[in-house]
Amino acid sequence: MTLQKNRAIVLHSGGQDSTTCLAWALKKFKKVHLISFDYGQRHKKELKAAKKIAKKLNLSHKTIKLPFLSELTANALTDKTVKVKAGSESRLPSTFVDGRNMVFLTAAAIYAKQKGIPNLVTGVCQTDYSGYPDCRNEFIKSIEKTLRLAMEFPFKIHTPLMFIDKAETVRMMQKLGSLELLKYTHTCYEGRKLACGLCPACKLRLKGFRLAKVNDPIKYEPKTVPGR
Amino acid sequence: MTLQKNRAIVLHSGGQDSTTCLAWALKKFKKVHLISFDYGQRHKKELKAAKKIAKKLNLSHKTIKLPFLSELTANALTDKTVKVKAGSESRLPSTFVDGRNMVFLTAAAIYAKQKGIPNLVTGVCQTDYSGYPDCRNEFIKSIEKTLRLAMEFPFKIHTPLMFIDKAETVRMMQKLGSLELLKYTHTCYEGRKLACGLCPACKLRLKGFRLAKVNDPIKYEPKTVPGR
Repeated sequence: MTLQKNRAIVLHSGGQDSTTCLAWALKKFKKVHLISFDYGQRHKKELKAAKKIAKKLNLSHKTIKLPFLSELTANALTDKTVKVKAGSESRLPSTFVDGRNMVFLTAAAIYAKQKGIPNLVTGVCQTDYSGYPDCRNEFIKSIEKTLRLAMEFPFKIHTPLMFIDKAETVRMMQKLGSLELLKYTHTCYEGRKLACGLCPACKLRLKGFRLAKVNDPIKYEPKTVPGR
Repeated sequence: MTLQKNRAIVLHSGGQDSTTCLAWALKKFKKVHLISFDYGQRHKKELKAAKKIAKKLNLSHKTIKLPFLSELTANALTDKTVKVKAGSESRLPSTFVDGRNMVFLTAAAIYAKQKGIPNLVTGVCQTDYSGYPDCRNEFIKSIEKTLRLAMEFPFKIHTPLMFIDKAETVRMMQKLGSLELLKYTHTCYEGRKLACGLCPACKLRLKGFRLAKVNDPIKYEPKTVPGR
């Protein structure tokens, strides 16, 4: 199979970061494919957002089911009995799914190699990493090497957001001329019709838009406005 | 959670190598748990063998379903339309499932961390590796580091068979006094009632027993005897 150096697989959750990565990849590569993971998230709004964006841009989109992730771990993103809590220095946040990015990147790499594509694009970011160890650059460098060894294939993991903060992510999207795409993204941990504006994910998102002096195109629940 | 340094998770396929690793682990650790993977193998004899051995030894045994592996790759172990062929220097063998050991070790590590267990035992072996890149020591060292970074947990991957050949594997089992366990193992790629004795896996197994001057306790299809 020919090596498809001009193509990339974007790991797409339907959220703000991976949608920014998608806009970035569309400028950098000739052809972009999307992959999403259904791992027993508490709500399917994220996956719906990913599908909507793929359709909007007319891109191929594969969703991989990984039910074993929620079978093996108990946490707030997959288990409705666990409350969402922010992390502290001594404790990982309750939304942490152990090994999640490692599983995602491995599955994406298997898919990519089948298509002869070495480029994987992911929105992990160590600046705002909220205590998730598998968002750090050191982890990405290590798994890139491991994937190459595992499959004897020249994988390259691209992390355009690694060292920037949420405000810079918003500005990147502005520069790429794709701000309107963010209107379809889903960030909130609560998964109701409108974003709650109060969970750690909403707060981080709102702070980014505020500091970038850009309006967030998604709608929030009205009661939360005074608190923001 | 307390770190369970005296416990180990053995990745158990139901085959000769992982059963030898299990016997090894039972001498080295106070408590051993088994994990197997159902990834759409062509036949379920392997998994049945794993279950039988776990029951025999009264060990806890978790089987994880990973259907996405066969969904993402096409090969002889999961796809009945692909013929089993040996590898050559220029080509991976047709039984290679891209990224398989990487997925298995990652899933086993997620399971292990939930139990506070840092030790993972796997039967990979670079001596007889038949062209599988994810059986080499370099890969194991790399994924061990990646897993530690991904989950901030002191994983240790034990590979008692890494540098020995099949004859030494048989002798190891003899020394451990567990040869009779091999009677329950399944190795053949064909998956019929009796082992075929002709596929690359059977040939490798038989060669090991022959060189170790030990009788293989499993039964083979009679017609294949002259060819051995």
